[in-house]
Formats: sequence, structure tokens, C-alpha cells
Amino acid sequence: MTDIRILNTADEGFQPQLDALLAWESVSDKAVNDTVNNIIDGIRGRGDAALVDFTNRFDGWQAERAADLEIPRERLEQAWKQIPQSQQQALQVAAGRVRAYAEHQKMESWSYTEADGTLLGQQVSSLDRVGLYVPGGKAAYPSSVLMNAIPAKVAGVPELIMVVPTPGGELNELVLAAAHVSGVDRVFAVGGAQAVAALAFGTESVPPVDKIVGPGNIYVATAKRAVFGQVGIDMVAGPSEILVVCDGKTDPDWIAMDLFSQAEHDEDAQSILVCPDASYIAQVAASIDKLLPTMERREIIATALRVRGALIQTRDMDETVEVANFIAPEHLELSVEDPEAMAKRIRHAGAIFMGRYTAEAMGDYCAGPNHVLPTSRTARFSSPLGVYDFQKRSSLIFASAAGAVTMAETASVLARGEGLTAHARSAEYRGKK
Amino acid sequence: MTDIRILNTADEGFQPQLDALLAWESVSDKAVNDTVNNIIDGIRGRGDAALVDFTNRFDGWQAERAADLEIPRERLEQAWKQIPQSQQQALQVAAGRVRAYAEHQKMESWSYTEADGTLLGQQVSSLDRVGLYVPGGKAAYPSSVLMNAIPAKVAGVPELIMVVPTPGGELNELVLAAAHVSGVDRVFAVGGAQAVAALAFGTESVPPVDKIVGPGNIYVATAKRAVFGQVGIDMVAGPSEILVVCDGKTDPDWIAMDLFSQAEHDEDAQSILVCPDASYIAQVAASIDKLLPTMERREIIATALRVRGALIQTRDMDETVEVANFIAPEHLELSVEDPEAMAKRIRHAGAIFMGRYTAEAMGDYCAGPNHVLPTSRTARFSSPLGVYDFQKRSSLIFASAAGAVTMAETASVLARGEGLTAHARSAEYRGKK
Repeated sequence: MTDIRILNTADEGFQPQLDALLAWESVSDKAVNDTVNNIIDGIRGRGDAALVDFTNRFDGWQAERAADLEIPRERLEQAWKQIPQSQQQALQVAAGRVRAYAEHQKMESWSYTEADGTLLGQQVSSLDRVGLYVPGGKAAYPSSVLMNAIPAKVAGVPELIMVVPTPGGELNELVLAAAHVSGVDRVFAVGGAQAVAALAFGTESVPPVDKIVGPGNIYVATAKRAVFGQVGIDMVAGPSEILVVCDGKTDPDWIAMDLFSQAEHDEDAQSILVCPDASYIAQVAASIDKLLPTMERREIIATALRVRGALIQTRDMDETVEVANFIAPEHLELSVEDPEAMAKRIRHAGAIFMGRYTAEAMGDYCAGPNHVLPTSRTARFSSPLGVYDFQKRSSLIFASAAGAVTMAETASVLARGEGLTAHARSAEYRGKK
Repeated sequence: MTDIRILNTADEGFQPQLDALLAWESVSDKAVNDTVNNIIDGIRGRGDAALVDFTNRFDGWQAERAADLEIPRERLEQAWKQIPQSQQQALQVAAGRVRAYAEHQKMESWSYTEADGTLLGQQVSSLDRVGLYVPGGKAAYPSSVLMNAIPAKVAGVPELIMVVPTPGGELNELVLAAAHVSGVDRVFAVGGAQAVAALAFGTESVPPVDKIVGPGNIYVATAKRAVFGQVGIDMVAGPSEILVVCDGKTDPDWIAMDLFSQAEHDEDAQSILVCPDASYIAQVAASIDKLLPTMERREIIATALRVRGALIQTRDMDETVEVANFIAPEHLELSVEDPEAMAKRIRHAGAIFMGRYTAEAMGDYCAGPNHVLPTSRTARFSSPLGVYDFQKRSSLIFASAAGAVTMAETASVLARGEGLTAHARSAEYRGKK
């Protein structure tokens, strides 16, 4: 039988059990930090020469010049032409839906004018140049290219630079095709901390960017943390999670497969079902037992379910909502009769998948909303990746002569209250009637 | 004569000079990191007992119990009643203007329904609980309370917890009055890394928050970085900066005073004028010489101008705009004839102060937009503090039966392309016609 823990909110020890289940600390150890800092220093000091060295060393290349590291745009188009038509069509549909949703997120500038003629507002502009990290090897996900690149392009970022390691020189055609369909401007075949450092500080051939987004291994994550401040970064994600809330009336096979769909990512992924119906929980457990042997990635799934999975029985649906809000999951499925009513009571979740027909996996690929979402309870304070992450705001203040008189008066009193008399006098100059 | 460097874009060495002028790296050394980590471990392990110990040790208190550390709300009201009427009025005007502007920033939920009945959207909610750090001692700024607290309250944060160290037990009445007028819910008289740790992890008396905002010294900044992930944090700010762009037609005394108003913050503050008119630059230099001896904080101002200030002569206004965009300043004054036209060409700035009447100091206190702004060129990728920092988004996806068929098709192809068959099958279950 599959080994997934069953918890019950009525048990005295439930809260500590839940805390232990959710606990996740991502720590870069000293060795990783030292390696990353050395790589960053190398790139800052020697630029392209270091980039070529590191790439040859870590990715098993024989690049002679940095120019060899750039993948020309024609190569992306070639990849696009080579993939099967079914994949072309799927990429196009997905890109179209992601783009359409992203358009709704676009922030616009605004301003208003007060009675005395003073104008206040907010001017929105896109970032100038963005770097997109795409992992190579087994975790090379074309969907990730769409989800990171398209919002940047919708935001109006003029130059989007993708980096993707190509261990042994091997290119992933579907990733290149996704870059083509997303409008990526330039691609470099570099990865690891050296790619992050090159994007942050620039080299002779890699232009410095203003923000770096995209997933990566522990070296990439550590490098992103290290260059934060020099450039912006997106979130540093923990393992993927799904929380399924069910009223006990969805086909249990469907729910078991939804739990698998997170668990198959990796052994640390977290799949949890919360439900007030004990007999339904037993049915889902039975579906898990039945379906697991049929899964291609059954070993990863079994480990993830055993180590980090849970089926949680609650007293009622109200308590189920409470548990969901406490967990603040990355992905929340509301597989219930009236999901819209329930969604209004959800305070913390990266994405909410409503109703029995909305498999979380649809959101991973093509529903439209981004699949880059806050993990490890950070949905309490953060949001999905979106167009807004590639835009920024500047406040606008244009005082009229009359407005300056009023504002100078207030500013002067408060500035003097804080002992900042240059502030006060600077305002007072403008406030003279 | 005041010792402020004069640069010229026409000089061959200009760009390296500018790079050196702007260079700023904030580094927490090992001793600070170790101290902060010990304090955090203490709070996590011993809660209130550690909080009382640290506060007694670092702030010269004799608190016996953690309950002694809370400042009751009545005390805030009492502070409000004690301050002069002019200050009451100034705080009220400022709070009203900050609130009115903040209301314009509030994000609302949205959704749309596709032809096949699938609903997509974004649900916006406020954070549940926010911590606001307010420095004690010489840098205790009531304006900072308004700027951090009011957007949180406009966002709808139900519980706003302020911490403010009170060295020797001394309370700043204006800070407490500002907390009163901003609607702060609870105040604890604690500070330093121990206050940050208490807010991040909670103690028996301090409730854990979801995000910590507000300025602080190197220990506070280091602690905020350390707890990031456990909670959200706002930016970690560098020294304050002003960039004045002038066409040479504003009273040079006004511009000199604007440069002073940043420089008086501290010795690291940066004040720069960019202007194509050499004779005007000389006039501003003369105004600096004339006015500096009259300033209360002249020593700080003189040091800041000497170490980090500059008057930069450009070839023309076009190049002036280019320099401004490169610098991406926290505060940008456009003291020119047609500031609205010029503002449209500004791509990077925290706040833009337009026209000759808009002293930057007005924005610090009462114009309305936030005075917490991106520093050290981070305006290239980040925004002023705003209501949106106290809200977050959850994606909404509600597939109709028909929509599920279409989405399952696309998701299945892409999931199988990535080798994720549980994803594919989970979608396919819903896609059966």
C-alpha cells in the first residue's frame, strides 16, 4: 500500500504535525556560497574569458571564444520548424492564452489634478533589459520559457536575454522553439552561477540586465540571492506544492492523479488533500494504490507522497478553508460544488483552481495565468509572477504655485519637527506668497 | 569655498568618474552577521525571555516582563493630545494627502469569462498582519510612520504592529502621535535585530507578521535580509539621493537648498545637479558657498557634498536626460520649463518632482506619494513603497466542461513533451468529451 500519512484536525497533536509537514528551509551551505562567490568574482574580474572557462569546465564544452556561446536567432527558428506540428500548435495555443491573460495585468500610468492645480500621479515604465534563466538537462521545461518570457514582452521589455546551459553542447529543441514563439531576443548557451553573474554585471558579449528571473538549481538560486540589489530577481522558489480541497464528490481517481502531478516533479514536492469526509479520503488512498503502479515516474511520486504528502481529515468545510488559509499553498484546487463562493474565503494561495474540471496541470501549461507562483507559505505576502514584475512605477508630483504654498506650510512644520531645516527652507522658498 | 566636484560629460574620463561617484555597496560584515544570527536564534528559542533580555541590554531598560514592552494605545492618543496644534494640523494634512494618493494605488480583483464559459481572473487580498519598524534616537522620523503605515491601512491590513526602540525608555512624542493618526494597531518598545526576529517568528507577546517594512540601522537591515522568506520585507535602502535637472532658469538658491536637503540626511547622502549651462552651475556653486554657513546641519551637508556630491555639466538637455536615466535616481527634480514633456522621457526614477515649485522636500512630508523610494540605481527595476506592497494576488482559473476539453488537449501535448505524464493524465481525465 502507498505510504501517505493521514492526519486529522481533531487529533490533539495536529498543529505540530502540520507545522512539521510544512517546514522547509532552503539553506545554501558554505561550500556552495564560496563556489558561487568565486564564480561571481571571476566574471566581474575577467568577463568573457571567465565565462568561457567556467562553461568549458562545468558544461563540458570546447568553446574558444565568447561568440561561440551565443545561439543565433536563426537557430531558434530552425528548432521551431523541426518540432512536430502537434507541439507547434500546443505551444502557439499556450502562448496565446498566456499572452491574453498577461494583457489584463498590464499596469497603466495615471494622474489626477487637485483643485489648486497640483498634479499627482504614477508613471509606469517597463524594465529596459531582462535576463531569463532556463535550466538545462532533465529540468528543461519549455512551458517555463513561455511563463517567464511572455509577461516580460507584454510589459514592453525591449530586450530579453535568455541563458540556458547546454551540457555537452546538447540543445533542447522544444526549449528553443518556445523561446522563438515567446519573442526572446538573444540566447546564450551558458548556465549556473556564471550565467547569473554575466547577466548581473555584464561581460564583453553578454549585456548587463536589470532583472533576472527563472528557476535553477542551488548554485543558480545562491547566485541570484548574491546579485540581488545589483539587479532585481524574482522569488527564490521552494519545492512545488498542491493542496486539494474536496467535498468528497469528485472522482477519486482524478484527485489522486492531481496529487501525483505535483509529486512527480521531485522527491521534495508536496501533495496534500484536505477533506471532511473520511470515507472519501479512503477512496482517494485506494485510487493512489491502484494508479501509482501505472505511473512512469512512480518512484519519485511514491517518495514525495511518503515524505511530504498528507491526506487531512477536517471536521467540516469551514475548517477545511481555515486549514487551506494556514497552509497558503502554491496551487489550491477547490474541487467542490460552489468553488466561487469558497474562493472568496481564500486569503492566501498562489493560484486557485476552481471546480471539478480544472486540473492544476492546465494551469501549468496553458490556462493563461502564470505557473511561477509563491511557494512555502509565501503566498501570505507574495504574488504570482506577472507583467507587473517587468514594470515599475515612478511617482509624479507637479506642484502649482498655489499648491506649493499649502504644501510648504505642512512640510515646513514637520521638517522642523524632525530637525531637518534644509528640508524646511527648501520647501519654504517655494511657499512664499 | 565649498568643495563639491564639477564634472563634464565632454571629458574623456567622465563615465568612469560617474561610475565611481555612484558606486555604493552595502555590506554587512561577519561580526554584524554573527551578532544578528545569534539574536535571531535567541528569539526563536526563548521568545519573550530573550526579547526582554536583549532590550534591557541594548536599550538600557529594566523591563521585567514582556508585557512592559507594549506601549498601550491610550499612550499614543496621549502623545497626540500633547503635541502643539501646528504639529497636529501638519500631521493631519500630511496623513490626509498620503491617504488620498494611496487610495489611487489600491489594486482590485478582476476576472473575465471566455466564450466557452471558462473564467480567468486575479483575486486581490490584503496581507493579514504587517510589522513596521521605526528607528529610535536621532533618526526617529514621524513622517516615516505615516509613509509606511497609511498604505498598509489603505490596503486593508487588519493588524499593523509597530516596533520602536526607546533607548533609556525615552519616547518620541511626535512618532507616537504619528502612529495614532495613521491607525497603527499595536506598538512595542523594542528595536534592533531582536524586534525584527520577534516580528518574523513571533514570541508569546509579539504576534508573528507576514511582512516587515521600515528603515533601520545595519543590524535591522541585516536581520531583515536574514528573515526574508519567513516573512516578506520591503527594500533594503541605501543612502538617500537627489538628482536635480535644471535648465538654468530656476533661482540658484532654491537649487542649492534642494541639494542641501538630501545632503543633510547623513554624510553618505548623494546630491547631484545636471545642467547644460556652465554659468548656471557656477551660480549654484556660489549659492552653496553663500548658504552653507547658515545651515544648522552644515557639517553633515559639507561632508556629503564633498564626498558624494557633484555638479555635472552636459552638452544639452537631451544628454541631461540620458544622464538622469543612467543614474536612475531615488528623487529626480525636473526644474525646467516643460517638465511634463521631459518626464515622459524619464525611464528610471523613484519619484519625479516637476517644475520649479516642486521642492523635493514636499514629497518627503506631504505631497501624497510615498517617500520610501528605490535607491542606488534600483529604480531601474523597483518602485516606490505603495498600497500594492500590502496586497497580493491569487490567480483564478475555473474551467468549464467545454474549456477543459480544449485546455486538456494542449496541456497533454506539452506535458508529454516534458516527460510529465501525471500532469498529462490529470488534464486528460477532465478532457474526455
